[in-house]
Amino acid sequence: MNTASAPIDFYFDFTSPYGYFAATRIDALAAQFRRAVAWHPILLGAVFKTTGAQPLTMVPLKGDYAFHDFARTARFNGIDYVRPAQFPIATQAAARAMLWIHAAHGGHRASNFALAAYRAYFVDGTDLGDPVAVAAIAASLGLDGAAVAEGIQTPEIKAQLKLGTELAIERNVFGSPFFIVDGESFWGFDRLDQVRHFLQHGSI
Amino acid sequence: MNTASAPIDFYFDFTSPYGYFAATRIDALAAQFRRAVAWHPILLGAVFKTTGAQPLTMVPLKGDYAFHDFARTARFNGIDYVRPAQFPIATQAAARAMLWIHAAHGGHRASNFALAAYRAYFVDGTDLGDPVAVAAIAASLGLDGAAVAEGIQTPEIKAQLKLGTELAIERNVFGSPFFIVDGESFWGFDRLDQVRHFLQHGSI
Repeated sequence: MNTASAPIDFYFDFTSPYGYFAATRIDALAAQFRRAVAWHPILLGAVFKTTGAQPLTMVPLKGDYAFHDFARTARFNGIDYVRPAQFPIATQAAARAMLWIHAAHGGHRASNFALAAYRAYFVDGTDLGDPVAVAAIAASLGLDGAAVAEGIQTPEIKAQLKLGTELAIERNVFGSPFFIVDGESFWGFDRLDQVRHFLQHGSI
Repeated sequence: MNTASAPIDFYFDFTSPYGYFAATRIDALAAQFRRAVAWHPILLGAVFKTTGAQPLTMVPLKGDYAFHDFARTARFNGIDYVRPAQFPIATQAAARAMLWIHAAHGGHRASNFALAAYRAYFVDGTDLGDPVAVAAIAASLGLDGAAVAEGIQTPEIKAQLKLGTELAIERNVFGSPFFIVDGESFWGFDRLDQVRHFLQHGSI
């Protein structure tokens, strides 16, 4: 894709419902403004160690509301969503698989995998924390599942995810989804309207 | 105001910028659906003791972003906003004043005071944590400033704010702004679009 400007940085964790919602929208939004999207899977657990935060659903009072809001926000936006049996999950396997696919097959197949993984987890009830399930999702996209299963165990891919998360924290990424557009940071699926405005006008 | 249905419960803390933004919108939104609004000042500090949360601006990584987002979201929505020199502030005086005004002069003057107090703090740079400033705001609205200053020191008003905050926590109110419409909870200025949809259709 030829773009007029730098890509939009899109940070997300695979266990983040709002990250999933954003993932279903960000490429189309960016394309309207001739922008590419750089998809960055990160580990929110490592980020939360820095911020002292914990998953929304584990915070007193917020837990039930959070699950209710996930489902309601999905309906409000016409996005498929079924509450996963396991939540949150460890997302190392999915994130590493995405990085491996990016290295082996490029960004387009990597973001396709991310969307398929999100859908498997948040619609089809797949346990995305399971590396076997992750490899199966890759295989369902025509990729070599065995190669993915092997790839996510390599020290190079593990180091790449660790570094990617550290670099995100250095850029003050503290949640999912998180967007950086021309140096301007936006946190949350709720901020896509501001991202759109910023892409259109160059400022808010 | 005659309303077809129960009022919308609107919970807010006077040091909450998103609470301020919501306060500028909620009455007009409710009126479109023939709803009244019950304005409930609460103390987020007491709520945060239950949830373990702390003000956004004090969380590592989030602080600078939060201030940036306050200003940007205000601009995006056409709401006046100037970053207060003191943030956050103790909001007992403002909240108690609102409750006293409600008891003495009714809900309409109480919500007018709330809007004036928010504006004094988030636009004019008034130190809203100062009871003297709070009484002066009331006086600027034609109320008896000395009576307000005295009223907010009474055990009855102090107990009322404590009870109001406890009742809010019992309803799982954990942030500001927070809306409850016919039993449905919405957290955040970002959720006013969903509140509108819910008022219009009765469900989401």
